[in-house]
Amino acid sequence: MADWMKNLNEDQLKEVERQFTIYAGGAQEVIPEAGLKQKIAKSIVTRLPLKIKLGLDPTAPDVHIGHTVVLNKMRQFQENGHIVQLIIGDFTGKIGDPTGKSTVRKQLTDEEVKHNAQTYFEQFGKVLDQEKAELFYNSKWLKNLNLEDVIRLAGSITVARLLERNDFSERLSAGKPISLHEFFYPLMQGYDSVFLESDIELGGTDQHFNVLMGRGLQEHFGKEKQVVMLLPLLEGLDGKDKMSKSKHNYIGIDEDPHEIFGKTMSIPDELMVKYFDLATDLPLEEKKDIGENLENGSLHPRDAKMLLGRTLVRMYHGEDAAEKAQSQFKSVFQKGALPDDIPVVQWEKAEEISVVDLLVELNMLSSKSEARRMIGNGGVKIDGSKVEDPALKVVLTDGMIIGVGKRKFNQIKL
Amino acid sequence: MADWMKNLNEDQLKEVERQFTIYAGGAQEVIPEAGLKQKIAKSIVTRLPLKIKLGLDPTAPDVHIGHTVVLNKMRQFQENGHIVQLIIGDFTGKIGDPTGKSTVRKQLTDEEVKHNAQTYFEQFGKVLDQEKAELFYNSKWLKNLNLEDVIRLAGSITVARLLERNDFSERLSAGKPISLHEFFYPLMQGYDSVFLESDIELGGTDQHFNVLMGRGLQEHFGKEKQVVMLLPLLEGLDGKDKMSKSKHNYIGIDEDPHEIFGKTMSIPDELMVKYFDLATDLPLEEKKDIGENLENGSLHPRDAKMLLGRTLVRMYHGEDAAEKAQSQFKSVFQKGALPDDIPVVQWEKAEEISVVDLLVELNMLSSKSEARRMIGNGGVKIDGSKVEDPALKVVLTDGMIIGVGKRKFNQIKL
Repeated sequence: MADWMKNLNEDQLKEVERQFTIYAGGAQEVIPEAGLKQKIAKSIVTRLPLKIKLGLDPTAPDVHIGHTVVLNKMRQFQENGHIVQLIIGDFTGKIGDPTGKSTVRKQLTDEEVKHNAQTYFEQFGKVLDQEKAELFYNSKWLKNLNLEDVIRLAGSITVARLLERNDFSERLSAGKPISLHEFFYPLMQGYDSVFLESDIELGGTDQHFNVLMGRGLQEHFGKEKQVVMLLPLLEGLDGKDKMSKSKHNYIGIDEDPHEIFGKTMSIPDELMVKYFDLATDLPLEEKKDIGENLENGSLHPRDAKMLLGRTLVRMYHGEDAAEKAQSQFKSVFQKGALPDDIPVVQWEKAEEISVVDLLVELNMLSSKSEARRMIGNGGVKIDGSKVEDPALKVVLTDGMIIGVGKRKFNQIKL
Repeated sequence: MADWMKNLNEDQLKEVERQFTIYAGGAQEVIPEAGLKQKIAKSIVTRLPLKIKLGLDPTAPDVHIGHTVVLNKMRQFQENGHIVQLIIGDFTGKIGDPTGKSTVRKQLTDEEVKHNAQTYFEQFGKVLDQEKAELFYNSKWLKNLNLEDVIRLAGSITVARLLERNDFSERLSAGKPISLHEFFYPLMQGYDSVFLESDIELGGTDQHFNVLMGRGLQEHFGKEKQVVMLLPLLEGLDGKDKMSKSKHNYIGIDEDPHEIFGKTMSIPDELMVKYFDLATDLPLEEKKDIGENLENGSLHPRDAKMLLGRTLVRMYHGEDAAEKAQSQFKSVFQKGALPDDIPVVQWEKAEEISVVDLLVELNMLSSKSEARRMIGNGGVKIDGSKVEDPALKVVLTDGMIIGVGKRKFNQIKL
């Protein structure tokens, strides 16, 4: 790679540093950092935008805020004039599972792929500037490769290198089958970078292996090597696993304001700072203040969560919706003066139940007659609403809060 | 596979057994044996010949008697009406080494491939019936495969299975690189069987992995599975390594009668029986007798070797040449009454040398004057021929025998 830095004047060098600080902020790894500076310098000298690549699986078009970690980063590039390459991996999607063993990876039709891609593009539009984004389908170039091309491609990588990918080596040593075609997915992803001459590829830290592949292949094909940026993975609402649809621990960016706000309130306290850092568009300074105030106790976690919920709703539904979601939440929960430590009860029985039976089952009251009396006195609330009818049947939902008097509360976990 | 056996009458069942005994004779492994009987039965019921496949590397057209182990087996199939498929692996030959690291595996032109194939075909004609042999170039079908086909093909095999191949697992554990494209060679060889619907594939025992691949792929593609026949490898003249051109331990079938006979005489005694079994066309009964007579001492190894040399020359040059080669050998060596244990001298110096200097260098005589005297007395022989001129210069050749008097001999090794 040419040394673009040496042709820059002082102002331009400052501009490189300015952009570098923004892009590197929050990234887990930039490989290599000097390369990122060179790329920025190149775009200044050539007056051409950088091409920022993101590969997408064509099967899962429900975008959640776990995805936005990368999207927010791409948005920063766009704000400085660069261009985003969104690549739909439709080639593999159309093949499905060649071993025929997995029903999960089923073959997609052209229409399904197109539909999913469009859904992605629309949802991404809530974060990205669509004017500075290009959508590609990788079948366009991959379908033209023949066996000779494939062998040349395969000749650029060793088996040992592929087995360095964690899931491959773990499966191999556990005696679980790796089908040979799986070795091709990283190669194809890498070849996308060759074909599109991407400058920078973004990915979560779990994509470490795959995104580095593009760098190696570009070099093999005599192209300028892309810079790889790995971004931290956001844990989901459970505070343990990476946010994902399959784990049911996500906040979808297309969900109702009420849902987004409510789910945000259920995030574990210790993840607050990470969520602010990775999932919000607040200025760096404000993020820093929030972290410090949580640390020294001047900001209560509950208030921080409200600010987070409000910010997330504002990002995807606007200021008015954010205001409304917050006041609604307050009226239901906070005005009912809920304590901070409501016991959570794992509910294993039928989800439709009379309130009277529910109160007895939860051991909140000792008998059905006592339960009826308490309802008659107006002392039983479900999610902050007074129960009027002693014969009421309810359908339990996850997170539902049952109150008896001013002190006794149970939260249902399904 | 259909059960072809059940439709056969008694005579036909006998015919299956007759052919089976011939084909299985001398084979190290038939996978599976019942499958071979079914294939024979099928050819009897359908009146169609079986297709017997042999894959050939397009780079090494010098056929030696190590190759003839397989060819002799194919000849047996031909003698019973079946057809031989000779497949030139030109597709990989034309690609060369995609990593660009090996100069050994260099790219071949179309002309070179064609020339090599023709050379094979002509040389094989000394063993095979060319009328019942078909020549194929696998680039014909492999060049049409695209990435999608390749992925489907790769989906039929696991990485663990490929790593079972000895050389792969050994290289991996020794930290030596295996380029990913190497995983494709067994797949391509297997795909040849799919395309040509081969009934039986032959190979040396070192081809165990590759020839079984065809069986698996045929099944994956819904074809009748081929039967695999593995034949023993013939050790070369050194008695240690597999006979091969690169080890310089081979007898080429295109070599002069004199060379074939002479090289045969240098085979270690303990390999006699194996050579008779695998490399000659003698009837089974005669092979058996030779083995027994060598065992009980009624046949001297030297006489067995003469018979072997004579047989090999007869197979590739005819009866007259065999007769002549034997009597020439006898006149040179046996009439000179060579001892059985001539010391071999590794020659590191200039290969053109005066006989006088040679005799001194070899310590066969203590001075040049003594050497000249001995030549004058007619007591020095080279390869059985008396040296007449004391000023003679000779060009040493590998295996050349220098004699002084009736007792002192040295054999030159270059």
